[in-house]
Amino acid sequence: MKATNIHTTFDRLLKRADKEALLNQKSCCLWMTGLSGSGKTTIAQGLEKKLHVDGYLTQVLDGDNIRSGINNNLGFSLADREENIRRIAEVTKLYVNSGLITINCFVSPTIDIRNMAKEIIGEADMLEVFVNTPLEVCEARDVKGLYKKARAGEIKNFTGIDSPFEAPVSPAFELKTDNQTVEESVQTLYDFVISKIKLNK
Amino acid sequence: MKATNIHTTFDRLLKRADKEALLNQKSCCLWMTGLSGSGKTTIAQGLEKKLHVDGYLTQVLDGDNIRSGINNNLGFSLADREENIRRIAEVTKLYVNSGLITINCFVSPTIDIRNMAKEIIGEADMLEVFVNTPLEVCEARDVKGLYKKARAGEIKNFTGIDSPFEAPVSPAFELKTDNQTVEESVQTLYDFVISKIKLNK
Repeated sequence: MKATNIHTTFDRLLKRADKEALLNQKSCCLWMTGLSGSGKTTIAQGLEKKLHVDGYLTQVLDGDNIRSGINNNLGFSLADREENIRRIAEVTKLYVNSGLITINCFVSPTIDIRNMAKEIIGEADMLEVFVNTPLEVCEARDVKGLYKKARAGEIKNFTGIDSPFEAPVSPAFELKTDNQTVEESVQTLYDFVISKIKLNK
Repeated sequence: MKATNIHTTFDRLLKRADKEALLNQKSCCLWMTGLSGSGKTTIAQGLEKKLHVDGYLTQVLDGDNIRSGINNNLGFSLADREENIRRIAEVTKLYVNSGLITINCFVSPTIDIRNMAKEIIGEADMLEVFVNTPLEVCEARDVKGLYKKARAGEIKNFTGIDSPFEAPVSPAFELKTDNQTVEESVQTLYDFVISKIKLNK
């Protein structure tokens, strides 16, 4: 017996609230949107570590674990990009119902595509975080060399270059990273999110 | 601060082992295979409740939350059935990496299709549980009325009627449910699984 303070009624199915109680956290999705190279995944990983120390169970969802797994049969056509985000949103919905806090890192460049995700996940459960890093900064970093390829025309429809990024009109939180260290960005996002995931008993 | 006994090295990404430590459990997938009406989901839900009382974090994955969500754009063609199981396996892999115990309830009638799941999830992490209930018993129950429709020819390729079920050759566990109450089945599966998910420190 690991815990003795779990009270479950045995005549019904487990619900999200039961799992949130077990984890002692309120589940939700932090949806990080922003240009390639804006720092989404770096900040998400820093936040995850910080929350883990506090005992929160989180999952970072990003290109690394999604495109190589559940979405490994999708390309970059318009239809496939939409299906990409749809599946991500459905996976997120499952996780949120399991009581976890997901930290999603996807460019997700249009208002429409983020609204689709919001419809699937539920508006109350999806906190949009705009990682607002100027294009010049992202392009100067060019960690993966993608901007260079996009400028050379080797990648088409690259967000920020020949495909638009539509900033969220009223994000739950905005991170302006260009005058902050990664640690500072992580801390400000942590300060924002901690009140959302604390379980009020 | 929720917990004070979590030790994390700050210079690397969180790993599955960190999350298992936080949850105080070893993650894995219990893959329940068996005919429609064999009792997979009923037993899974009973097991989940029992494990929850002990403080284990689990997630039942079944037709209800998968076919209505991530797989709502798939039909029942051979290709779609395969894609159905592929996506389920990929979702399971994510969950296992998040430290959870998933309890998967899918007919998954062929050795090939379960092997595909095993390749994705990893053989060590996927415990095949054969819910071995005789066809006559499943058909007599016919909770969803599907056997009646299959016998009337209204549903084609129904497992057990006009489509084969290939029993696992060496399942990790076999449940013979026809001489057991649901509670007894849940208890015997619990007794099997508990040693697998206890974290050895």
